[in-house]
Amino acid sequence: MDIENLDAMLQKAFDESSKIYQSRGFQRRIGFGRKPALISVDLANAWTRPGNPFTCDMQKMDKEIIPGMQRLLEACRKNGHVVVHVTTAYQNTDRNDPHNDMGMWHHKIPVEAVSLADEDLWAIDSRIAPIQGEWVMMKKRASAFSGTPLAGYLRGCGVDTVLVTGVTATACVRTTICDGLADGFRTIAVKECIGDRVPGAVAWNLYDIDAKFADVETVDTCVNYLNNVEGFNDRRS
Amino acid sequence: MDIENLDAMLQKAFDESSKIYQSRGFQRRIGFGRKPALISVDLANAWTRPGNPFTCDMQKMDKEIIPGMQRLLEACRKNGHVVVHVTTAYQNTDRNDPHNDMGMWHHKIPVEAVSLADEDLWAIDSRIAPIQGEWVMMKKRASAFSGTPLAGYLRGCGVDTVLVTGVTATACVRTTICDGLADGFRTIAVKECIGDRVPGAVAWNLYDIDAKFADVETVDTCVNYLNNVEGFNDRRS
Amino acid sequence: MDIENLDAMLQKAFDESSKIYQSRGFQRRIGFGRKPALISVDLANAWTRPGNPFTCDMQKMDKEIIPGMQRLLEACRKNGHVVVHVTTAYQNTDRNDPHNDMGMWHHKIPVEAVSLADEDLWAIDSRIAPIQGEWVMMKKRASAFSGTPLAGYLRGCGVDTVLVTGVTATACVRTTICDGLADGFRTIAVKECIGDRVPGAVAWNLYDIDAKFADVETVDTCVNYLNNVEGFNDRRS
Amino acid sequence: MDIENLDAMLQKAFDESSKIYQSRGFQRRIGFGRKPALISVDLANAWTRPGNPFTCDMQKMDKEIIPGMQRLLEACRKNGHVVVHVTTAYQNTDRNDPHNDMGMWHHKIPVEAVSLADEDLWAIDSRIAPIQGEWVMMKKRASAFSGTPLAGYLRGCGVDTVLVTGVTATACVRTTICDGLADGFRTIAVKECIGDRVPGAVAWNLYDIDAKFADVETVDTCVNYLNNVEGFNDRRS
Repeated sequence: MDIENLDAMLQKAFDESSKIYQSRGFQRRIGFGRKPALISVDLANAWTRPGNPFTCDMQKMDKEIIPGMQRLLEACRKNGHVVVHVTTAYQNTDRNDPHNDMGMWHHKIPVEAVSLADEDLWAIDSRIAPIQGEWVMMKKRASAFSGTPLAGYLRGCGVDTVLVTGVTATACVRTTICDGLADGFRTIAVKECIGDRVPGAVAWNLYDIDAKFADVETVDTCVNYLNNVEGFNDRRS
Repeated sequence: MDIENLDAMLQKAFDESSKIYQSRGFQRRIGFGRKPALISVDLANAWTRPGNPFTCDMQKMDKEIIPGMQRLLEACRKNGHVVVHVTTAYQNTDRNDPHNDMGMWHHKIPVEAVSLADEDLWAIDSRIAPIQGEWVMMKKRASAFSGTPLAGYLRGCGVDTVLVTGVTATACVRTTICDGLADGFRTIAVKECIGDRVPGAVAWNLYDIDAKFADVETVDTCVNYLNNVEGFNDRRS
Repeated sequence: MDIENLDAMLQKAFDESSKIYQSRGFQRRIGFGRKPALISVDLANAWTRPGNPFTCDMQKMDKEIIPGMQRLLEACRKNGHVVVHVTTAYQNTDRNDPHNDMGMWHHKIPVEAVSLADEDLWAIDSRIAPIQGEWVMMKKRASAFSGTPLAGYLRGCGVDTVLVTGVTATACVRTTICDGLADGFRTIAVKECIGDRVPGAVAWNLYDIDAKFADVETVDTCVNYLNNVEGFNDRRS
Repeated sequence: MDIENLDAMLQKAFDESSKIYQSRGFQRRIGFGRKPALISVDLANAWTRPGNPFTCDMQKMDKEIIPGMQRLLEACRKNGHVVVHVTTAYQNTDRNDPHNDMGMWHHKIPVEAVSLADEDLWAIDSRIAPIQGEWVMMKKRASAFSGTPLAGYLRGCGVDTVLVTGVTATACVRTTICDGLADGFRTIAVKECIGDRVPGAVAWNLYDIDAKFADVETVDTCVNYLNNVEGFNDRRS
């Protein structure tokens, strides 16, 4: 038994779990709604480029996440859909200052690596750069909804569906999805556009998410939906 | 390669991940603070007893979670610590009524199985029944902090540390922990007192939680802390 | 100068203020949206009937608020609009117990007067009793949105406009309106259906609300809107 | 009866109201706690200097608010207390763009007057400029707690008491105080350091606040407390 077999073993666990979930009424489809927004989480240089503690799996980033995001952004912009680019940075990254704005999170992970003073770290990756009218929202916690005006903003825009992309599956993406559902939105996790930095993390977290918190859908399906919202076959259960 | 080897395979994945996390500055210890609260999530009959879609792994429930909770409750009560028993139920479980109070969650999981009208379903398990002065808090979403006054209540009590127990690791426990950290509390996941209903879910979710959101600690350590808060060696990083 | 002249004096202050507000671009109209909900705040017996510390101005209650609410409810029910009846009560009203669920509010006002154990206190007034499918939502704080799943519930229902009624203008109604706006809803304060218990409080608070947080509209206008949402002349600015 | 008599008339209304409030158990004292923070709301140039739609009563600003704030800041800095400078600005102030980040508030007030691009507008007034380690927190809504990580930040700092100053009494100060109480903090409104721009607004709103949401205390009392937290006679009711 070797780590190369991890994916196969996870699939066995997922198959076993799905039997239980389906017999109990979990793993339902939430479906796509009538007014989507794309919520792109932490696709900023500290996460998308090499050399930072937050740097993610670069192969997935360059080969899948960024190209997928480019397709999603094109579809959103062509159709006038809401796009929010979420990033994370801190004004005071001195861990010895008990009043720093990192809250409690620096007691678990190296958030001191993202200083507000170094804009290059938290700027959105230039390959998917925001355009005029797309909100770049700064957060301090894992979830894009936690301690931010995001839910109210989306409701004000009339949005009923959030397509979530970015990093990491384990933390900021998963918490954003869980909060999005709780805040009243149809939640879609875009399969190829969600990354992480440790083995198995994307697979396991997307499995949990799909079972309980959001539909995991491909970029193809999402682009098709974004181009054809009115006519889309929403499978509301 | 067989499902019986799942735990061993997961351990390999965790070992691999921990190398990356530790070289990057993740997996820090948040430590125990000076005023704890025990937050027990969904240890109500629909989850702790057989026969409901939400029923969890009964062996773990009866052999580990309930006995562990009894020890934690005894230590809390002896020392006057805050205890909150969290449960979940809905007034209107008609899935065809677009105005039911299940929000969006019934589009993913069978929350219609917990009706407010059937108190036996959402009552806290009698083996760990609340006593006078312990708040039984009703929630509607996964996290005990989402759409509830819990954070404000705990701040009002002066609590700085939450010990989280209950079910499930995948959903209500994990989201409660993530929100607890974001809301400014030291977060402790009590290892033996967190359950689920599908294979590997407890192991994987506790691993993610320990890496980024809370310290996973044993019942023994937590009971020791609850009995000795002032003298406890808090390892604040 | 006598207290009987209070209303006339307040009107002078409002006239003076309105000159400033209008020259600066305040007092805009938010307008009615496309999917309303009626949010009725604390029209429960402790507030609507004599004999409780929370009892409000009974003349206004019996002559204006309750009859107005009956007309609003009739229009909502006829048209299938969302109605939420909000009430307030506490499990532990012992002010000497530092872990009671009253948070900090009993340090300012007599919330110990509304015990969860005495259902008659927090039950919605029978003259405007909830019907099947209308959610009775329990809150612990002033605002109907604070520490409750209300915003997520309304978003899940597709609601974009909240018509707020109830008591008191100074506290629970005003905070509900401020939060409703922040959470992304068009906010309407129903003029005749908002009460209080001290002189001038309704007039002053409705003035502030109309200047900055919601449109103050009559029952007639609101009933007309509720009966004719699609055709209503929304004045979105 | 003339507008010059407004204050005297308001005092009559307050006296009448206080009789009712006191006989009912309102107007209690919440008292000062053991770890304070100063929350200064919107004392940025758009509010503190002439020429903006948000400009407040300049006489009160220059003669009372700024000098009072200087004394409070000095006491906080000498004693290492937490200070948060709150300000407000928007990335996209195009009212015709339905996806602008102003949410719904531009439908009521001229928030388009505070563009993020013009730092001079939202920069904290230089007379009370932040020093190293003091967090400058950007908000989008009225309350400093709404859509921000403030509550979690304060809990992480161990704060139990918030002293609130700034503008305006009607909007951002009052909502901040109401939310601060709901979020579990002892709330103190600093009498001389709260302003507005229309007649009577400060008096009326401070009266409502003191009756139900916070203790209104003088700068002298607050400075004394900040210099002597441990020994302060807290009057917790």
